[in-house]
Amino acid sequence: MKYRFIKITAGLFIWTLLAGSIGISNTAMAKNVILIIGDGMDDHQITIARNYLVGSRGKLLLDQLPMRSAVQVLTVDEKNPQRALYVADSANSATSMATGVVTSPGRIGTTAGSDQDVINLVELSQRQGIKVGLVTTSSITDATPASFYAHVSERGCENPNAMVEYEKYAGIIVDCSQDLKANEGLGSISEQLVKSGVDVALGGGMKHFTAAMEGSNISVLTEAVNQGYKVVTQMDELKGQHGGKLLGLFSPSTMPVRWQGQGGRKAENPETSFMNIFHPMLGSVIYPEPMRCEDNPDYGDMPSLALMSETALAELTTDGTKSFFLMIESASIDKQAHERKACGSIGELQQLDEVLAVALNFANSHPETLILVTADHGHAAQVLPERTIYEALDVPIHSPGQVARIKTPEGAIMTVNYATNNFVSEEHTGVNVPLLSNSNGVGRIPAMLTQPEIFTIVKDYLFD
Amino acid sequence: MKYRFIKITAGLFIWTLLAGSIGISNTAMAKNVILIIGDGMDDHQITIARNYLVGSRGKLLLDQLPMRSAVQVLTVDEKNPQRALYVADSANSATSMATGVVTSPGRIGTTAGSDQDVINLVELSQRQGIKVGLVTTSSITDATPASFYAHVSERGCENPNAMVEYEKYAGIIVDCSQDLKANEGLGSISEQLVKSGVDVALGGGMKHFTAAMEGSNISVLTEAVNQGYKVVTQMDELKGQHGGKLLGLFSPSTMPVRWQGQGGRKAENPETSFMNIFHPMLGSVIYPEPMRCEDNPDYGDMPSLALMSETALAELTTDGTKSFFLMIESASIDKQAHERKACGSIGELQQLDEVLAVALNFANSHPETLILVTADHGHAAQVLPERTIYEALDVPIHSPGQVARIKTPEGAIMTVNYATNNFVSEEHTGVNVPLLSNSNGVGRIPAMLTQPEIFTIVKDYLFD
Repeated sequence: MKYRFIKITAGLFIWTLLAGSIGISNTAMAKNVILIIGDGMDDHQITIARNYLVGSRGKLLLDQLPMRSAVQVLTVDEKNPQRALYVADSANSATSMATGVVTSPGRIGTTAGSDQDVINLVELSQRQGIKVGLVTTSSITDATPASFYAHVSERGCENPNAMVEYEKYAGIIVDCSQDLKANEGLGSISEQLVKSGVDVALGGGMKHFTAAMEGSNISVLTEAVNQGYKVVTQMDELKGQHGGKLLGLFSPSTMPVRWQGQGGRKAENPETSFMNIFHPMLGSVIYPEPMRCEDNPDYGDMPSLALMSETALAELTTDGTKSFFLMIESASIDKQAHERKACGSIGELQQLDEVLAVALNFANSHPETLILVTADHGHAAQVLPERTIYEALDVPIHSPGQVARIKTPEGAIMTVNYATNNFVSEEHTGVNVPLLSNSNGVGRIPAMLTQPEIFTIVKDYLFD
Repeated sequence: MKYRFIKITAGLFIWTLLAGSIGISNTAMAKNVILIIGDGMDDHQITIARNYLVGSRGKLLLDQLPMRSAVQVLTVDEKNPQRALYVADSANSATSMATGVVTSPGRIGTTAGSDQDVINLVELSQRQGIKVGLVTTSSITDATPASFYAHVSERGCENPNAMVEYEKYAGIIVDCSQDLKANEGLGSISEQLVKSGVDVALGGGMKHFTAAMEGSNISVLTEAVNQGYKVVTQMDELKGQHGGKLLGLFSPSTMPVRWQGQGGRKAENPETSFMNIFHPMLGSVIYPEPMRCEDNPDYGDMPSLALMSETALAELTTDGTKSFFLMIESASIDKQAHERKACGSIGELQQLDEVLAVALNFANSHPETLILVTADHGHAAQVLPERTIYEALDVPIHSPGQVARIKTPEGAIMTVNYATNNFVSEEHTGVNVPLLSNSNGVGRIPAMLTQPEIFTIVKDYLFD
């Protein structure tokens, strides 16, 4: 059943007829939206990055945007879609932004419980003749980018081999049987991407394109070429004009991040002395040694998010006057926070800030460009006092979780706490997240809104 | 040495002369500022309260304000004031707002290291003939209100008996010897309040007024009466017009809070089964039972923060046309979060939202009123997923800290995590905090600013 999808499509069809009859052309109203998403980039992540990159009194570029709003992140229960959940994942939160529909965790462009496809910004743009680009440091099939072009019941179903009882991680089984083309579904996420007609798609995730298309003996990558995509896999290939459709896949899955903790260290448990066995307030505690952030040796010659974004902007404007929609995601602010790697998150937030410089520069010469910067959901990391506020008491006070003590370039120590669970990977949190914009957002965006309203803002800006 | 104080005072004196000579009168430019501070009210606290009070899709009154900004909270090291600290306490953060000067934790209206007094908004207002009110649910001598009228080296020096090697809590010794009047200081905080000339001061903290004034045999409370204060201690006494100066002290220290967890419960440690002794991922885990919030039986007949604020507004406007500055603090959002009492914080954030209704109603009939709502620093609480995002794995994943699982009126479960330390009281965090305003702040307040700039905004609005 694709009821919702069909209903909205019919409305658009009528609108398009009307627009045609009164002579509105796309070129006449050329407007662009650049939606920059920091995955997990809540105010804590921004503060952590600011403290390190420009100092506590400094301003990141995103801090200097003229408009700030806050976003209520909404999620519902798959079994009872009337019931609120208070913490999102990247699939349901990106679906909110891409479709305006609140759904349950793990879902990509489909409704909670009823599994109906809902029209997304890529489809709406294409129906209006507007070009579309997607850029990310994750797999291009990962939840955030996928929500802008795909419809599938589970985010893990990223390629044709991951559709039926697929074990994504140890014990985590995903199943999208109902999305198989054999069952009148749209197939896996990578298959949907190569059919989507997205003009530019740049990121990681090559491993999701090497399997054979469902019911075929050609790979998804070959199908991409058949669909008119130029495929690039190396940074050097990004340079110059490409024309036509461009698919860049620069790593097997998530692209390596720019930075790591000194010697590859991440957050660690404070160590308590022997006496602590008898009572938590006996003995002493040693906090992890402070560390600097350093280049990640695995980063190699990855293209930066800024370079990919510049390429995407060039491709989307080859014909000069047409509007476009471009989504750019710095994905590993989140992924590094899951792994308690504060330096990794900081470097990826720096990547996002560099992208914003690219976008603002573009908007200088293309003033009808609305730039939005937001996060999809909150994350675990918190800045703790360097010394506990109870330090006068001679007791071993420490975080019950894990901490990274980062030496900041301004000569101080920043303690970053990860304490949402005792597992190998931290949890998201349910805090409202920031939404920032350039001057085109001023007066257009309320000071507080729900995440699905971001969809409406983009849609209204591009199509109204 | 009070160098800074004297320098600014001299400037003001010249300004006042100039203003007098060109005929500027205070009544001609009647403008009011109501600064509402939620202690520890970061975006997580707001989200937690919103989810409970109006549902995840609802809007608090503060969510509906037209202007949102974010505030960089700045703190420096007492021993090396050039060095940043990344987490504030309520003393140094309120000093930022009240004086525009960044100082070290624990300091009230004095500089880090050099211990110089810096002029505050109360003193500036009084020099301009502008009335001043202070309302709080904490002791009126606690760090946040104190920073607006007092100058002392340590926030704990709240009364004449707490000035020299005073043990505030077990093991926590405060000492303000240099602030003794005998040492040419200004004395304790309560002594400074009764000398301050603040027009209305309402809150808790009676115990800080019963001791004798330094070098005298009359109590601070008697001195308040001698200084022209009408002293009230019961809610019923708040009603009606008072005229003159008003001091309300409704509890011995912090006023009791409105709400508590069911049966007085707070956040609790998840319980793991026997097998967990051998490995954290063996066995099973039982999360604390969900609970509702309920009335706190100790609240008694405390005046609400809204009622105190209404009284303050009435007193500040008895002569109709003069400007005023009113600071209102909901103090126990923070204090309850320290104690891991999510329901307590929610109830006190509700109190703040009710105050905002009072302020907005006042501004309806007094349109030259700038209303600011902000927090002084971040706090520990985080919203975690109801079920871990790794629930498909059959392992006992749980917060390493303590959690409160709150049954929300919209029929869901909100898990609030407290995991900044293993001590009896949680830590503050270093996140940037929100600043909201009514329409008079639109175009006047940048989308991101440092906390001392709040001082400048208030000063410029009232005096420029």
